[in-house]
Amino acid sequence: MATITVICAGMMGTAITYPAAHNGHTIRLVGSPLDNEIIKHGQKTGEHLNLSKYRKNNPTSGVNTPVLTPDNVTFHYFDEMEECIKGTDLIICGVSSFGMDWFCNNVIPKLSEETPILSISKGMIDDGENKGRLISYPEYMLRFTDKDLKIYAVGGPCTSYELVDKDPTEVTFCGPDMKTLRWLRRLFETDYYHISLSTDVRGVECSVALKNAYALGVALAVGMSYKREGREFEHYNSQAGLFAQATKEMYLLLDVFEGKSVRNIFLGIGDLYVTVFGGRNRRLGILLGQGYTYDASMAKLEGITLEGVVITERTAKAVEQLSELGKLNINDFPLLMHIKEILFENKRINIPWKAFETEYEG
Amino acid sequence: MATITVICAGMMGTAITYPAAHNGHTIRLVGSPLDNEIIKHGQKTGEHLNLSKYRKNNPTSGVNTPVLTPDNVTFHYFDEMEECIKGTDLIICGVSSFGMDWFCNNVIPKLSEETPILSISKGMIDDGENKGRLISYPEYMLRFTDKDLKIYAVGGPCTSYELVDKDPTEVTFCGPDMKTLRWLRRLFETDYYHISLSTDVRGVECSVALKNAYALGVALAVGMSYKREGREFEHYNSQAGLFAQATKEMYLLLDVFEGKSVRNIFLGIGDLYVTVFGGRNRRLGILLGQGYTYDASMAKLEGITLEGVVITERTAKAVEQLSELGKLNINDFPLLMHIKEILFENKRINIPWKAFETEYEG
Repeated sequence: MATITVICAGMMGTAITYPAAHNGHTIRLVGSPLDNEIIKHGQKTGEHLNLSKYRKNNPTSGVNTPVLTPDNVTFHYFDEMEECIKGTDLIICGVSSFGMDWFCNNVIPKLSEETPILSISKGMIDDGENKGRLISYPEYMLRFTDKDLKIYAVGGPCTSYELVDKDPTEVTFCGPDMKTLRWLRRLFETDYYHISLSTDVRGVECSVALKNAYALGVALAVGMSYKREGREFEHYNSQAGLFAQATKEMYLLLDVFEGKSVRNIFLGIGDLYVTVFGGRNRRLGILLGQGYTYDASMAKLEGITLEGVVITERTAKAVEQLSELGKLNINDFPLLMHIKEILFENKRINIPWKAFETEYEG
Repeated sequence: MATITVICAGMMGTAITYPAAHNGHTIRLVGSPLDNEIIKHGQKTGEHLNLSKYRKNNPTSGVNTPVLTPDNVTFHYFDEMEECIKGTDLIICGVSSFGMDWFCNNVIPKLSEETPILSISKGMIDDGENKGRLISYPEYMLRFTDKDLKIYAVGGPCTSYELVDKDPTEVTFCGPDMKTLRWLRRLFETDYYHISLSTDVRGVECSVALKNAYALGVALAVGMSYKREGREFEHYNSQAGLFAQATKEMYLLLDVFEGKSVRNIFLGIGDLYVTVFGGRNRRLGILLGQGYTYDASMAKLEGITLEGVVITERTAKAVEQLSELGKLNINDFPLLMHIKEILFENKRINIPWKAFETEYEG
């Protein structure tokens, strides 16, 4: 049996330990300094505060029963982090995009080459050297250390609250070494959590990062439908049109960022699908689709943090830079550019349907 | 202004005329011999019986208001067919898979080379000559005549009842000649109906035909979730896992059937998305996902006809034949093969999640 230490006890960082705990492994959940409430509550009750809150607001299987962590999961404050990682077989990086720099500066320096790291953070970031070049988070993390850390990552469709509910889930673990990947699969695989393996870190991570931007884009159609109907009623022709355009642009972007498009696009498509139906990016997309500006929408959402906004900003900027360098045709990305306009130029929704049309004579 | 004659006045054959009628063209809706009720009711009231029924059972924008046809649409019995096609600028073939042979035998011989035909039928069929080779319906239709008919077709995500509701829709028209395709676009394009064009008939038609089989496959997860929950509650991790696997298999099949995978997969993806959320294939998929056998499910659905069943049978058979010939690896299609088992060997659902896993070392 292995010992797994998670750093940052958010919903996904916690949920991914459930299949491993299910397999009998020992889990140490270490909160970031922002997670003190979660740790306090968890130590007292065994319940995960945010997963329970989510279930309460979005009743799923348990209908408002608390999300209890399995017996082999313990909760720890951040000041126990160094103690917790001693003798651990695997470290999980559980931060979102917004905690990435914190993790790189405060945790990475404490980690050793002997212990593999599995990251659940989804995103890409400017490589800081080449105009328009984005790299994956595992690549970014390595820049904060001279050590030869082995960083693995999880991609593919999985929402934390549904994993906790044991909804059958199919993800991909990626990283530098197939032998370690197979060991990771043995730790986590259950009859409801299935794992493909890939050594193409850039491809996997790029594919699943892009979906946050585009999920917001597809959800615009939900808001458009709500507005037209005057009630919460969805139409799907428009969602499907945006979904098809989104996957087409994601495919092209995978090539742009050297992510082996054909091999990895299906991961991103699955991840896009699951993200359209859950989470904060959907909520923002619906408000924008109803015609609210970004500022008005964020006021309604009370300043939640949104990974879709971060990845849209970075990707749109990279596309603009690469277009200036003549390396791509910006007209191939009309949906991304419209999402950017809405988010950063406070424009109202006006889907460029005509720009999605193509003519092929072959 | 043009005159357009539709043969077979079903939901889709009728709905596609709405944007053209909106643009001021004259529409003659000719029922097949099975459409007499629709024609009778339409002549009396201007209402389309089946579109109204659908709206009544699935209240959308109009919430149970009748679906009236625009003033420039007239209803005709099949015995007026030859009269109606005289002087018409375009013929629309409005049959489903189940009416294709009827159309080929009873209508195709009456058509002339001067009048282009636009088909809304989605499907592929054995080419009758080469083992495991499927061809598109436009190719199949040409086998029933020595005339040089010009057959065009519509692919991409569009449900009839949402087009009637003017939900923004993005489709693709395909056919032999770009000049005619552009003319067709001018006839039909409105601010809610957007049209891409392609001369790759096989690719477009194959991509959108396959989605009927796979939509049923994705809907299995909905039924699994209903069963686990004991109520109509959906989870999306499992849907997304099946959606990703479906698109991956569709991509491979596009190559198998010479349909230019990269160019056409996105059409099929959009079409898959819209089909998962509406129609009969979803209803069957949900029942099968709940654990009913095919026979038990069909008894509940009272013998409705299902295009997803037809295309699954044909595609699975082709895949098996091509596998025997060593032309593909049947293990690349575990979802299709499981759908086939359920539909034709009366097996109960048992998603082969493990078979979806891949390992990539590159």
